Formats: sequence, structure tokens, C-alpha cells
Amino acid sequence: MPFVQIYLPATFTSAQKKTISVSIQESLVAIFNVPEKDYFQVINILSDGHLIHSDSYLDIPHTDQMVYIYITCALSRTKEMKQALYASIAQKIAAGAAVNINDVFIILNEIPWENWSFGQGKAQMIHKSTG
Amino acid sequence: MPFVQIYLPATFTSAQKKTISVSIQESLVAIFNVPEKDYFQVINILSDGHLIHSDSYLDIPHTDQMVYIYITCALSRTKEMKQALYASIAQKIAAGAAVNINDVFIILNEIPWENWSFGQGKAQMIHKSTG
Amino acid sequence: MPFVQIYLPATFTSAQKKTISVSIQESLVAIFNVPEKDYFQVINILSDGHLIHSDSYLDIPHTDQMVYIYITCALSRTKEMKQALYASIAQKIAAGAAVNINDVFIILNEIPWENWSFGQGKAQMIHKSTG
Repeated sequence: MPFVQIYLPATFTSAQKKTISVSIQESLVAIFNVPEKDYFQVINILSDGHLIHSDSYLDIPHTDQMVYIYITCALSRTKEMKQALYASIAQKIAAGAAVNINDVFIILNEIPWENWSFGQGKAQMIHKSTG
Repeated sequence: MPFVQIYLPATFTSAQKKTISVSIQESLVAIFNVPEKDYFQVINILSDGHLIHSDSYLDIPHTDQMVYIYITCALSRTKEMKQALYASIAQKIAAGAAVNINDVFIILNEIPWENWSFGQGKAQMIHKSTG
Repeated sequence: MPFVQIYLPATFTSAQKKTISVSIQESLVAIFNVPEKDYFQVINILSDGHLIHSDSYLDIPHTDQMVYIYITCALSRTKEMKQALYASIAQKIAAGAAVNINDVFIILNEIPWENWSFGQGKAQMIHKSTG
């Protein structure tokens, strides 16, 4: 149910990208109760000058090794679950992928269950509540 | 009014990409009553290892020829229209582009009419209701 | 707080891309009251045939030098602010980047404050109201 768009610079290695991907998925499984096989992501590589950021925001400095993570998921998780998700993703990526924890930027875009088709042209989650 | 982000592997031919693009647009026109000329899409090519999926989810197996389709459109279509849209897109792509119907993944992100500018710096749809 | 996905053709120069990026950010600062350092964007380059549009929609003709701008921002701006934002972005880009004002396409995707993490695994805006 989550669909994750990852944006990162061309300097990242395959091993770093793998760690980032897995860190996000493991966090979604552990905290948002996403099934393990519900794993849909794209990694967009940005060449020089195409990943834009300021040097610092909210007293958090940023380097040119930033990672933008745009998670589209179903409604509705609690604030506590969202906080736990951000912490888990950022900590795992920082620990495993040699990315500074300041440079992990995450957004959640929540959409209704009926707005997903996982293949076969069907709306597999249409009877789930989004209330 | 729809804006469609398509993600697919670098192995797809131009003919396949054209069929995928047209299949989505024709389905939006037929089922969501989108005007024919209201046709705005991007196709993002993902190199090896950058389109990530599990081998199977919800008993639907996936290959490395998956297509992710992220449709941003205006509020608010009925559940029945959404179901019909998924079916149409997936069937057309499977029939015309040599993609397995299991591998057509679709998301709808619905936003208000006032959130669109189709050029000239104007909000052309600002007086439409979003129900 | 905004995260901006920009899509444009491979023909654009670095100077054009810089002007587009800055035009969007300056408009967000001036009209949406975004802090200057709250500057997070990606520029996605689309090769030939991957930026799809009709020749004209709503009597606005389009060329192959279109720019799609997908702004994810926090709830909730007024209609008047949105109109002013579109006008500012399009006028600045047309004036500074040699892009036709018809070819500046903008979408706003508004999400709650609690759905953002600006680094360090924290939800920095979680106590802001989205009402």
C-alpha cells in the first residue's frame, strides 16, 4: 500500500541505495503494519545541481548528500505512528548507509484505500475503511 | 486536469511507452470525463535496480517489467468510476503494450480544483466545486 | 515545508533551470510565507518523448518546452493566495527563463503539518494546526 518515491544524488552507491530502500520498507512494516511483500518503490537519481536545498533549515544543516523520501500511503495513521516512522527511517539510514541523519527528509501523502490498484485492474482495498 | 507520473524500466520500447500513455489518457477520457486535450504526463525511466517490488503481493506475482502509474486528478470520483478506471487502464496496457496485467500498479491522488494552473499563471478551475 | 518536483525537457540550460528553481522559491516565500531557507526541490530531466502534452488545452497552446511544477505544501492556503502564487511563478519564469507563460503548469498537493520530517527523524511541525 505504500508507494515510495526516493530522490538522491548520483554519487550514492548501490549498497547505499539498497540500505535506504530496505530501511524505509522495514520501518513501514514495523510501525505502519504494512505487509512485508507490500513493497513498491522507485529511486530517482539526480545529477549535479538537480537536488536543490538550502545550507540549513530549522537549525539542521544539509549537505549535498541529501535523500528526499516521498511516501504515499493509505489513511490514517496517528501522530505517534508518524513520529515513530520518521525516527526509524532516519536512524536506520544514518546507521546503515553513511548518510547524515540531518539529510533524511521525509514526506507522507495519505490517500484513501479505494485509490489503490495493486495490479490486474482491480481496487483490492476498496472495502477497507479510511475513516 | 489529471497529471500522470509514469515510472517504468529502461527496457520498454518507444511503442510500448506510447501505448501506455495513450491507454491511460483514453481511460481518463472515457471514464473520468476528462477532455481529450487535457493530457499531461511524464514518463520516468528507471535503470536497473531502481524500480523496486516484491515477487508477489496479494497473490499477484510481479516481474521486473512493472509499470507504476501515479495519477493526480481533481476531486471527487465515485468508487465505481475508480474501479472502472483501473480496469480500463490495466486491460488496455496489457492488450496493447505486452505488459502483464499483474504488473500495472495505479494510484490516484485527488486534489481540489483550485489547486491547478494550466498555464498563464491562472487558476482556470477555481470556480468549480470539489463536492 | 514545500517540496517541489520540477519536470522539464533535456533542452533547458543550467541558467534556465536555476531561474525556474529560484522563481518558484521566491514566489513561495513572498506569497505563502515560506521561510527562505525552507527550500527543497528536485529537477527531473525528461528526454525526448517523455514529457507528454496536447497541442492546446483551454485555448492555451503548448510547446515542447513545457515545465511541470508539482508543489507539495502544508494545508491550508486561501484561494487568493493560490491564485497569487500561480501568477507570480509563471510571470517570473516567463520573464527570466525564456519559457512561454502558457507552458508553466502548476499543481498544489496540500498535506498536514504532521506529515513532514525535515531531517533528524523528527516531525518538526507536528504542533502546528492544519485546521
